[in-house]
Amino acid sequence: MYRAPVAEISHTLKSVAGLSDALENGLLGDLGEDLVNAILEEAGRFASEEIAPLHQPGDLEGAKATDGSVTMPEGYKKLYADWTAGGWNGLAADPEYGGQGLPMMMSMAATEMWNAASMAFGLVSMLTTGAVEALEAHASDELKAKFLEKMISGEWTGTMNLTEPQAGSDLSALKARAERADDGTYRLFGQKIFITFGEHDLTENIVHLVLARLPDAPAGTRGISLFLVPKFLVNEDGTLGERNDVICHSIEHKLGIHASPTCTMIYGDGKFGDGSGAVGYLVGEENRGLACMFTMMNNARLAVGVQGVAVAEAATQKALEYANERRQGKAPDWSDGGMSLIVLHPDVQRDLLTMSVLTRAARSICYACAHAVDMAGAHDGDEARFWNERASLLTPVAKSFSTDIGSQVASIGVQVHGGMGFIEETGAAIYMRDARIGQIYEGTNGIQAIDLVMRKLPLSDGESVNTYFAELDKILEDLKASNNPAFGDASGRLTAAMGDLRAATEAMTSMTESGDTASALAGATPYLRLFGLTAGGVYLAKSALAESSTDDRATMCRFFAENLVGETASLRDTVENGAASLGEAAQSLVA
Amino acid sequence: MYRAPVAEISHTLKSVAGLSDALENGLLGDLGEDLVNAILEEAGRFASEEIAPLHQPGDLEGAKATDGSVTMPEGYKKLYADWTAGGWNGLAADPEYGGQGLPMMMSMAATEMWNAASMAFGLVSMLTTGAVEALEAHASDELKAKFLEKMISGEWTGTMNLTEPQAGSDLSALKARAERADDGTYRLFGQKIFITFGEHDLTENIVHLVLARLPDAPAGTRGISLFLVPKFLVNEDGTLGERNDVICHSIEHKLGIHASPTCTMIYGDGKFGDGSGAVGYLVGEENRGLACMFTMMNNARLAVGVQGVAVAEAATQKALEYANERRQGKAPDWSDGGMSLIVLHPDVQRDLLTMSVLTRAARSICYACAHAVDMAGAHDGDEARFWNERASLLTPVAKSFSTDIGSQVASIGVQVHGGMGFIEETGAAIYMRDARIGQIYEGTNGIQAIDLVMRKLPLSDGESVNTYFAELDKILEDLKASNNPAFGDASGRLTAAMGDLRAATEAMTSMTESGDTASALAGATPYLRLFGLTAGGVYLAKSALAESSTDDRATMCRFFAENLVGETASLRDTVENGAASLGEAAQSLVA
Repeated sequence: MYRAPVAEISHTLKSVAGLSDALENGLLGDLGEDLVNAILEEAGRFASEEIAPLHQPGDLEGAKATDGSVTMPEGYKKLYADWTAGGWNGLAADPEYGGQGLPMMMSMAATEMWNAASMAFGLVSMLTTGAVEALEAHASDELKAKFLEKMISGEWTGTMNLTEPQAGSDLSALKARAERADDGTYRLFGQKIFITFGEHDLTENIVHLVLARLPDAPAGTRGISLFLVPKFLVNEDGTLGERNDVICHSIEHKLGIHASPTCTMIYGDGKFGDGSGAVGYLVGEENRGLACMFTMMNNARLAVGVQGVAVAEAATQKALEYANERRQGKAPDWSDGGMSLIVLHPDVQRDLLTMSVLTRAARSICYACAHAVDMAGAHDGDEARFWNERASLLTPVAKSFSTDIGSQVASIGVQVHGGMGFIEETGAAIYMRDARIGQIYEGTNGIQAIDLVMRKLPLSDGESVNTYFAELDKILEDLKASNNPAFGDASGRLTAAMGDLRAATEAMTSMTESGDTASALAGATPYLRLFGLTAGGVYLAKSALAESSTDDRATMCRFFAENLVGETASLRDTVENGAASLGEAAQSLVA
Repeated sequence: MYRAPVAEISHTLKSVAGLSDALENGLLGDLGEDLVNAILEEAGRFASEEIAPLHQPGDLEGAKATDGSVTMPEGYKKLYADWTAGGWNGLAADPEYGGQGLPMMMSMAATEMWNAASMAFGLVSMLTTGAVEALEAHASDELKAKFLEKMISGEWTGTMNLTEPQAGSDLSALKARAERADDGTYRLFGQKIFITFGEHDLTENIVHLVLARLPDAPAGTRGISLFLVPKFLVNEDGTLGERNDVICHSIEHKLGIHASPTCTMIYGDGKFGDGSGAVGYLVGEENRGLACMFTMMNNARLAVGVQGVAVAEAATQKALEYANERRQGKAPDWSDGGMSLIVLHPDVQRDLLTMSVLTRAARSICYACAHAVDMAGAHDGDEARFWNERASLLTPVAKSFSTDIGSQVASIGVQVHGGMGFIEETGAAIYMRDARIGQIYEGTNGIQAIDLVMRKLPLSDGESVNTYFAELDKILEDLKASNNPAFGDASGRLTAAMGDLRAATEAMTSMTESGDTASALAGATPYLRLFGLTAGGVYLAKSALAESSTDDRATMCRFFAENLVGETASLRDTVENGAASLGEAAQSLVA
């Protein structure tokens, strides 16, 4: 069973992401280290003791839909109530509305723990948090007053309604429509699919944020508005009023996250009304809905990356536990009678170490991204812009690299279990099934890679990425100066990786600047992997170089550097030279 | 829906694996090209039209167990009857007992098609074929006379009973016991787990091959005997007699292959008898059972590799079909109104091409391995030994590389489908779930890698692998001499990969010869991947260089060489230099 790795999370936050420096410099308000430690400990306890035991039963039972209602698996209602009672839902939210106002770093550390204990359970608050952020940034004071407090406490949950059958990655194609009503509200009509926790029985009300078009809206993404559509209308005194005309038509039968209902939502078909549409309230300005949605999407992307870390951590723990119990064969130098623990077999050790270091590398990137978000909030002007760009740069890497690793690590975890890994009751395959969605939702990993190459590398004319690389260089200088033999050849190998990353970045920049978009797009995915591997490897060094660290972190960094980071050379080559053959060969793909 | 790629399979058999040369040289009996073509066409038709439509419904319904009986999903009984009526079960089996006596190459080509259409359905005959091979090689004439004909026709199916809870990869630990009876038969007692098609309702009888220990047997693997234990005893006239004391206790709830019942079998607990044990017949000699089992395991491993190819092919087809239907966004240079087909996006093209070339590379290796099996059968003396060693060398690569690719390609297939990929009804996730077991059963891929390094590289003092490499070199010379510009830099890049493979092989040999087993074991998995990537890439060149080929194969070879094969450099580095850091870091893994 998952045990939150509080010490490792804390070390990564403090010594890699920059939490300690930020605390020392007073950049995080009156937050102090004692409170940080207490929160991490208590979140870890709740995740390990309260959430984790319901993970596997919840997967088996799944969420169930009947006639527009969704019933959550046994125990989830109480779990959610206990969890919100602990104040966990509003960790980073605005204190004015009851939030804890804690840094994103703390929120993401907690997010890791909830999702490692149960990714399906972790999703409900992830979506609510996203909705809260969008409302905090864009809603009128009236809407905020009516909805925010109960969403931040978790008394009501939130959803994001973007996707329609014809509009997935490409939101310009969406068709849901909104009409202006005489009273200043709107009436919504249409169908939305893949709506996470669109319906459930955890709370009395659900607040949907819905993208739709006004009748006179321009075509494409500039004609999309954002609306708040509650399941139950809310009276002036805050009590629940009429049922709004929105219904869950069905839930999906999915590969994983079975305890997270994925709903098809129908707005305004008259089931709960007179056919005049579901009542909605405009969030932000008309036709500026996509910008509002992007507010929540950035942090949601980071949170999805953290889900990748979370599942990877849980899968690693499970495999490690099994490898320390299961005996088969004889390991080298095994002289006792009987069979060895499989953890002593070098091939299994390669699996377990790969799982462990990839998880740590991804965690570092996610927390560094959260740090950038916090620093953007703690500063003004150019500094805020600097940190906003840093967060923008790291977000696609955090999302894609970490979720790729979530799936990769979970699959290795199945392998370590041998035949037992394929049996559902063992609980290893669940991680593989759950992790798989992380690579897809909140913008597929391919789209993240394109975002990195086409929008993020050019930030401030490349200054943003260059400054980031210079920071990584600085860590590598410290590594080079270290006399710790436990690092092996980490310095040489990570420096080579950094060279590959720089060269590939220059190649990408030159492609985009010369208008050779097709080549840049062709190399985007290998480029992102190269970026993540290198940054992750350098962070492993930073983690090990910290004063508070121990030698086993240096050894882990060395393993990563001497076994895994060498892939960067071929990734660079693919970025630099792969597009031509891709373009030629692709002609055979078109039917 | 899957359509058997008969033309590509045929080309690979004939021009890559060596079927055409073997036919020309009269090494395959009176088999002629017309018959080859007819068989491939008809197998393709049956797979596409009869099996494939039951794949997804079979997964959804699954096999069901009640009180020792197993009910197959709707339609499977008729499907199996039609399939055996077509004579497909005994394709490579001994004509003396009704088999078709066709080469392994033909059998594996058909195996690919059955498993691509439905891996769960493909398993029943895979296990029967393995049992038939073991009986052909080791059973007494009396046993052969009684059982072989009906197993070859498919009227009865076969199973392999190896695994017990404490004895998975390590069979030395197995405890099932056999006692000698006065009549020359044996009585079996014990529990076996993970028995594929251990029970089902497709046929009237099931013939179990069971590993067990005699009371006076030596400990370890030298004390294991092989027994034939039929579900129903068989009378002298061939009719079915008494029910034997073997029962399916339960079936597993698995990640994939839901239509393939994975059974826990109990022998001799008295449910169908007086407690004196399940009646068994010795196959081969007492205490030599493991050797008999290995006869079937070699070909079974190749067949599992072919399953990897099969699932990869089916997943590729599905993704390609979707990418040619789904429209999202605007591809580079897209000038029409509206959205582009996603097949036009370079990032999606990378996915689809990667799927396609990896599938072809793995197929080539599997068919080349089947060719070696056939050549061993067609020759005597040193030549037979040469080809047996070739088959031995390629078997672990065929098994592991292909099943790794099965999972990798199936996962990419999910990604190409975006959100739809995560929805079970789409049918993309099934391939990912089914493929996963291929990396585990018939010896985990890690164990295959160890087999390659520790047992296969040393064959004939390294002469066997060197001769193989020389053959690959020869293909690369032809590639270098080719003036076809469609190959791009394939020659340079594949030659570099070949250099990496040779260097890594030398490193491995030097480790094993110097007794540094731990380092060799540590590098086994990356070494096998390096072997497979290189050999697969060279085979793509061979496929494209064939007179009967077209330029699109050269383009595919180029894509592989310029985008994927570069990984060999880091794999080589890991083999050569990775073990030290692995050994250090692994100390933290032991609880």
